[in-house]
Amino acid sequence: MCVASSHRSPTLPPSVPKHNWKRCAPIPIVLDAKRGDIGATAEQYAREAFERYGAHAVTVNPYMGYDSVAPYLAWRERGVIVLCRTSNPGSAELQCLDNDGEPLYLRVAESVARDWNSHNQCALVVGATYPKELAAVRARVGDALPLLVPGIGAQGGDISATVAAGRNRAGTGMMINSSRAILYAHNENGDDWREAAAQAARATRDAINAARG
Amino acid sequence: MCVASSHRSPTLPPSVPKHNWKRCAPIPIVLDAKRGDIGATAEQYAREAFERYGAHAVTVNPYMGYDSVAPYLAWRERGVIVLCRTSNPGSAELQCLDNDGEPLYLRVAESVARDWNSHNQCALVVGATYPKELAAVRARVGDALPLLVPGIGAQGGDISATVAAGRNRAGTGMMINSSRAILYAHNENGDDWREAAAQAARATRDAINAARG
Repeated sequence: MCVASSHRSPTLPPSVPKHNWKRCAPIPIVLDAKRGDIGATAEQYAREAFERYGAHAVTVNPYMGYDSVAPYLAWRERGVIVLCRTSNPGSAELQCLDNDGEPLYLRVAESVARDWNSHNQCALVVGATYPKELAAVRARVGDALPLLVPGIGAQGGDISATVAAGRNRAGTGMMINSSRAILYAHNENGDDWREAAAQAARATRDAINAARG
Repeated sequence: MCVASSHRSPTLPPSVPKHNWKRCAPIPIVLDAKRGDIGATAEQYAREAFERYGAHAVTVNPYMGYDSVAPYLAWRERGVIVLCRTSNPGSAELQCLDNDGEPLYLRVAESVARDWNSHNQCALVVGATYPKELAAVRARVGDALPLLVPGIGAQGGDISATVAAGRNRAGTGMMINSSRAILYAHNENGDDWREAAAQAARATRDAINAARG
């Protein structure tokens, strides 16, 4: 997966050719913009993500409700990945508040699976750093939704626990993301960035596949 | 107030000189970016808002919790305006979910007033389209926080009800925002944009001051 991260890329030596996106065509491009705004603005952000940047999917924040997400859903061939239980240390503050006996993040998962996903284009962001909650989300949505799972790599989430908690019955259904551990795998000079990033990406892929058993 | 809206500006005739931001210096610039991301990314978004764009304040989304907002708060001379009860039609879906007897948006208001505002740099976004909830937020936070209030103008919020519900004991404490009603006040040709926008802005200001009584 090509992740267009909101982090700045490391500075590359001037000899590095610009990336040829056509070579990347069969690989899904996720714009991790975490958008959340009123409908008129969301319409323009959707055009930015899908037209200007050519992303196949975009991440969105659910706090403003369905009408702030609907303009992305109107692009029926594109993916809309909704923040649910994020990987950062303070994410419980709102996401785990109790709502009629269950945490807010499960209410978000339920709304997306039941109401927002009527054209099978949604997924949920659930962090690898909270494998119990990852399992709770998978149990709640069944096999209906793929999960985008950040938090391995630089954030320290365990790959085996992540795969066990988040996979669907077919042993798939997850996009497990690593950004910084690959982007910044290079040495201090940055002159080995190509090999170092490739090696980190392959090692991550192999560890995920080994955990799938 | 200069609001750097996320809407696209109307196309201006080529004869219009570029805006001289120095003339705008005493006017606060709010970047309505509604950011919400993990700490390492938020640090860069904060630099973007405050260094690159020179904004005095930025809007942020609370869904990811305190550590996603802390990098903005580290800029002690800048404002951090947290989404609380937004003006859009579907905002109740999450924001009004019941949490131990009170809606989520009041929990957000409470967290910001009690914990996030330790350096008196926070404000809350509360829409003019929900004046009862605007009054509830003001009652909860007292005079501690200013409120950024969108929803008059194109979104139809009532100015008198808004001022009555949201003002503090001094009759101030609100930034009442209008974007589209001013940006798009011009005629079909756009050739009267300067006078039309100025007239709409003055009329809005006068209506707000009249409501303050």
